[in-house]
Amino acid sequence: MDIVHRIGIKAPAADVYKALATIEGLAGWWTRDTTGNAQPGGHVAFRFHTVTGDEIGGFTMGVLEQTPDHKVRWQVEDGPAEWLGTEVEFQLSQQDGQTIVMFGHRQWRDAGPGGEFMAHCSTKWATFLLSLRELVETGRGQPAPDDVKISNWH
Amino acid sequence: MDIVHRIGIKAPAADVYKALATIEGLAGWWTRDTTGNAQPGGHVAFRFHTVTGDEIGGFTMGVLEQTPDHKVRWQVEDGPAEWLGTEVEFQLSQQDGQTIVMFGHRQWRDAGPGGEFMAHCSTKWATFLLSLRELVETGRGQPAPDDVKISNWH
Repeated sequence: MDIVHRIGIKAPAADVYKALATIEGLAGWWTRDTTGNAQPGGHVAFRFHTVTGDEIGGFTMGVLEQTPDHKVRWQVEDGPAEWLGTEVEFQLSQQDGQTIVMFGHRQWRDAGPGGEFMAHCSTKWATFLLSLRELVETGRGQPAPDDVKISNWH
Repeated sequence: MDIVHRIGIKAPAADVYKALATIEGLAGWWTRDTTGNAQPGGHVAFRFHTVTGDEIGGFTMGVLEQTPDHKVRWQVEDGPAEWLGTEVEFQLSQQDGQTIVMFGHRQWRDAGPGGEFMAHCSTKWATFLLSLRELVETGRGQPAPDDVKISNWH
């Protein structure tokens, strides 16, 4: 089972790639508490907090691939059980003057009870991809803890 | 292949159900040009236009199931080839004082070239579910043609 999304960003691929392939870029649209080494073979830790500062969890990604202006691919090394071993991929292309991001969070084996956790993550990824677009187009995204809340699960 | 989403709405299930099970409700968050009979056995036509009024396509759904305050299920009878025969489902439950919408657009057999069309629809559904939440919580959604544009594909 895969989560897939597609979004178009009115900016050069190099700008989108920078937001996906650097710690500073990632901290600008996913979660401010992003640390580590975003180079291939490196590990990046993404931690999430409430607006009042309590930690509510996070993920550690192993960077499998970075192809400048084209692709970033991670494997989940630490996080919720359902995420372990899954892969996250961003592929960039050009269409109609936009940089198209094809997003995949792939190889889910367990969607959680009733499929609710995977469904939550799917919607949440969409809001973060809108935040990525906002960051690249305007210079200011909505990373956690200022992210769009979508439910009782944040 | 399924598209799945989950969103929480701070309103009674009856209010969310009304937005999913009536023509007026659907026109308030998905597309203003919604016509037909939303009762089980009925057919509902959803047409999309540009802001300048040009028609850009649409879908016709057969209503398979409506269980008040719990579930709405449609089958796609007309629309893009990739949508034909797929099913769209909204399941409602209560958690932490919110009405949780579990959304599924199921039984895709063809995701389009490179999987791009299904990925586009996944992201677009997320923005429409945020519009559904906005409609129910505030009385005003963002149905097409005033929907959030996500790419060169609208």
